[in-house]
Amino acid sequence: MQNLTLGHGAGGRLTAELIESIIGTGFSSGPGGDREDCALLPEGLAVTIDSFTVTPRSFPGGDIGSLAMCGSVNDLSMRGVRPMYMAMGVVAEEGFSGEELENIMRSAASVCRELGISLVTGDTKVMPKGQVDGLLITTCALGRPETDRTLGASNLRPGDAILLTTSPGRHGASIAAARYNLKTASLFSDCAPLWNLVEPLLSFGSLRCMRDCTRGGVGTVMCEWSEQASLGIDIEEKLIPRNDDVHSVCDLLGFDPLYLACEGCAAVAVAPEDTEKTLVVLRSNPLGKEAALIGYVTAEHPGMVGMRTLAGGKRLVDMPVGEMLPRIC
Amino acid sequence: MQNLTLGHGAGGRLTAELIESIIGTGFSSGPGGDREDCALLPEGLAVTIDSFTVTPRSFPGGDIGSLAMCGSVNDLSMRGVRPMYMAMGVVAEEGFSGEELENIMRSAASVCRELGISLVTGDTKVMPKGQVDGLLITTCALGRPETDRTLGASNLRPGDAILLTTSPGRHGASIAAARYNLKTASLFSDCAPLWNLVEPLLSFGSLRCMRDCTRGGVGTVMCEWSEQASLGIDIEEKLIPRNDDVHSVCDLLGFDPLYLACEGCAAVAVAPEDTEKTLVVLRSNPLGKEAALIGYVTAEHPGMVGMRTLAGGKRLVDMPVGEMLPRIC
Repeated sequence: MQNLTLGHGAGGRLTAELIESIIGTGFSSGPGGDREDCALLPEGLAVTIDSFTVTPRSFPGGDIGSLAMCGSVNDLSMRGVRPMYMAMGVVAEEGFSGEELENIMRSAASVCRELGISLVTGDTKVMPKGQVDGLLITTCALGRPETDRTLGASNLRPGDAILLTTSPGRHGASIAAARYNLKTASLFSDCAPLWNLVEPLLSFGSLRCMRDCTRGGVGTVMCEWSEQASLGIDIEEKLIPRNDDVHSVCDLLGFDPLYLACEGCAAVAVAPEDTEKTLVVLRSNPLGKEAALIGYVTAEHPGMVGMRTLAGGKRLVDMPVGEMLPRIC
Repeated sequence: MQNLTLGHGAGGRLTAELIESIIGTGFSSGPGGDREDCALLPEGLAVTIDSFTVTPRSFPGGDIGSLAMCGSVNDLSMRGVRPMYMAMGVVAEEGFSGEELENIMRSAASVCRELGISLVTGDTKVMPKGQVDGLLITTCALGRPETDRTLGASNLRPGDAILLTTSPGRHGASIAAARYNLKTASLFSDCAPLWNLVEPLLSFGSLRCMRDCTRGGVGTVMCEWSEQASLGIDIEEKLIPRNDDVHSVCDLLGFDPLYLACEGCAAVAVAPEDTEKTLVVLRSNPLGKEAALIGYVTAEHPGMVGMRTLAGGKRLVDMPVGEMLPRIC
């Protein structure tokens, strides 16, 4: 195993390698071995886990508390699993403000209340001053699958439509703006729980898979899907919903919006004949009002993702290797 | 909410207050609201979560990998839940040794293999150098209750026997010895998965509850039980299995073995008539060969724990408020 670099935590190629190395030390990956965002257990529950290290802890549109809940809720939602229970591990630095912790927990509790989720178990640890920066939250969410079909990238077929539920990169751009003191009054993280947005899609037999575009952004999800399905994906830059503030931040800092983290933006793949019907459902929810078709699955160039650029050329969308913004989530 | 002190992470009085404050920010605690070590879900699974920050990461008898697995496995086992699935969140410092991570994961995987546990989902984050000390692991374990009865402190009745499965404090003393460079060649952490030890007790209708004595040690478990059951507990110091190395470390450093952390020592409460039968079963497993009766539940002094000392006096066993050894688990 390599020594760890920031890239190993970026959600791209190195993270995938790290995960394979960890599993390779002798773990059985059991019924969750399909490398999707959550594991479907034979007992009829599904489970996912995520650790959150975001800095700053509070940002326009959310904080580490709401983020930790949304992140795990969304990992369940993408597989058609209704979020029901939460387990939470909190690691805090000695001297951490009680008032700030209370605000963060209030924000986390509010996401849980909105979705009817119970906090069933938890753990708190305090590390001596200087041994951890502020506060880390790990959330493990559990829920009940609301569809009999197993949603996942292995369902993808050539011709399938790829939709995006909103403009990508708002979480990453908000964190970057907060960290670099950029003035962007109208830019907010997209941090939101997506269960209510995607639940109505579960009755569509044409739904193939969904994935929230967190670390690594839309680009990474497209690469993961094409690799997992051994199919190609073609997307068009001009079809991707655009947020001008995100593009301004990217222009200033040299980031690519395609790889910027989202926390309330999902990629949805459906059989082509149901594209319009799916868009109508997504757009009826405020979180999906910008939903758009951005491309198609193809039998050509399996395992590779191409993008027709605004300039009309075609470029390869590759999985990112390094890390643009550490501690984005 | 108060600003956080190391005592808030020590597993005693302040930790209990912190947990109540967090829940008080607006969480529903749902079906897991009985403050036991794991939550029993109506779907027939149970879940527990724990974050591990131990330093040094490797110690005689284990490392943070085996500890993280044993800690969560034991929280399930104490409620009669067979550990089956594990979710793991890893937060590492940039530059962390790949070789060390591999050894730690091998050690974690070996505990899982021993018990037939699958690692069903996971997450990895890397924080920039200096922002977290080395490696933190959060484990969320899931399993199936193997008894129809709900094991918990509310089952305690006056007269019940309190047993201890082994000599307490070996984990805490090992960590202290490693941290202060004390020479103790024969002292090892008791870190071990306890499922196989306690599973045979589940068929005893006389079994009231079990609790592994982790942070806060045996003393804290006794205090929690007496408070949760609104009953008194009387224990005898001379009946507590004794490890001479633990006592040497305690004498040198001024610790009380009663409050030192264990990671493979459980308190077991049974109806008095089954005391001997329970001890025979426990002693048939190498992890329980020192098992002993250490005291009884009493209707007197509800909510308080008394200990007859070696000197023959009686003292109050109170819940610890401060922190003897931060980052013990």
